[in-house]
Amino acid sequence: MNNNFEEIQSITIIGGGNVAWLYNHIMKKQGLDVSCISSRGEIREEELMSDLIIIAVSDNAIDEVVARLNIKESILVHTSGSMDMEVLNSYAENYGVFYPLQTISKLVELNFPNFPMCIEANNKNTLNSLFSLANKLSDNVYEISSFQRQYIHLAAVFASNFTNHIYGVAKEELKKKDIPFEILFPLIDQSIEKIKHKNPFEVQTGPAKRNDSIIMEKHKTMLDEDEREIYEVLSNMIIKKQNSLKQNK
Amino acid sequence: MNNNFEEIQSITIIGGGNVAWLYNHIMKKQGLDVSCISSRGEIREEELMSDLIIIAVSDNAIDEVVARLNIKESILVHTSGSMDMEVLNSYAENYGVFYPLQTISKLVELNFPNFPMCIEANNKNTLNSLFSLANKLSDNVYEISSFQRQYIHLAAVFASNFTNHIYGVAKEELKKKDIPFEILFPLIDQSIEKIKHKNPFEVQTGPAKRNDSIIMEKHKTMLDEDEREIYEVLSNMIIKKQNSLKQNK
Repeated sequence: MNNNFEEIQSITIIGGGNVAWLYNHIMKKQGLDVSCISSRGEIREEELMSDLIIIAVSDNAIDEVVARLNIKESILVHTSGSMDMEVLNSYAENYGVFYPLQTISKLVELNFPNFPMCIEANNKNTLNSLFSLANKLSDNVYEISSFQRQYIHLAAVFASNFTNHIYGVAKEELKKKDIPFEILFPLIDQSIEKIKHKNPFEVQTGPAKRNDSIIMEKHKTMLDEDEREIYEVLSNMIIKKQNSLKQNK
Repeated sequence: MNNNFEEIQSITIIGGGNVAWLYNHIMKKQGLDVSCISSRGEIREEELMSDLIIIAVSDNAIDEVVARLNIKESILVHTSGSMDMEVLNSYAENYGVFYPLQTISKLVELNFPNFPMCIEANNKNTLNSLFSLANKLSDNVYEISSFQRQYIHLAAVFASNFTNHIYGVAKEELKKKDIPFEILFPLIDQSIEKIKHKNPFEVQTGPAKRNDSIIMEKHKTMLDEDEREIYEVLSNMIIKKQNSLKQNK
């Protein structure tokens, strides 16, 4: 990285959701000059004098919020996993994306592990400025295009949101029979360890992998309608995927 | 636990699958007198003189294998997550279950973390003998009824097998766009940390949780048919579950 860029000294975050909260929290912790304002009220001119303006609102509100701003010199970024960087191109000369790959839930006291940050910018100097700021917040900074970012977001929905729901189902099933969810923790840890080192499809185990229809039928009778649907769809997908792996060998 | 039971000194494992391999491995490591024989060949009388005979074959083979044995004094156990203990009741006086809550795949060099063992027996002395042996193999031994065990097995299918497949889909989606799967690891770790401390349904995040139909529709266009089906079913389940949580508040 060359030095032909400006260090970001001051930051304004617009938004009241989880990402706004997260950035405000970790930037303050780093001693950065950061302020966080609501997207709903009036946004005064002097609040837009920061080096960086972060639009941390929901995807479908970005356009409406940005249209109300009169950006002078500031770099303008959004934080969305799925919106193209170019949605900002008529509102600022220097713009980009500042996307935290995190699952943020205020219910949880986070330790802020070293979460990846995906950044993108419309020119080299802006990219360098964003890189420099991101490096203060995380050791795990990636330059990611808008095109790639939407696939990361999609993969994150599978690897975080969908698995979360499935763990919820597992917990609920155990609770019905007075079995502590903790009994599954070593298994869960072990499964996570495996997928980090091997292709998940190649270390698949279980009744669907073995195509053990007796067990699968029995399991389905033990489940309520919704959980049964999840069971059927995922078992069928495992069977199909494992068959196609066998045929390709 | 009283001392009115016999310590298991010698063990015969019948089977050639992952569980047989696991028990053979960890029992040898503990210096136990263990031998492992195939269920397919002839089983000689003297191989059945051990204190404990472990039937580690697939569920639908248990009956056929056990029927060929002439058990004298030995304790007889199976290792199945879903078969009732009582399938053994006409073959031995003392019998039970010795079920390891693990996902075992020979492809993976396992460190054998402290996996839970679920044990059950048809009488107190046998239970004590099995407990004593299990305690040598794990610090995490539970007495679990046949009824509970089948729900543990079912929950394990969700928490290990189904999530594994979903991680595989996430990895595959990223690979198509030349993005390393590692970018998701901090998110995955964080999600696992959350479900260990909170009810997964209460810390759900993502487009389905927000009922963000624009993102969900977009994601579906990015997926192949099979992955789209998973996406639809799980998103619908999340929406439904989150709505029912709201209504119950």
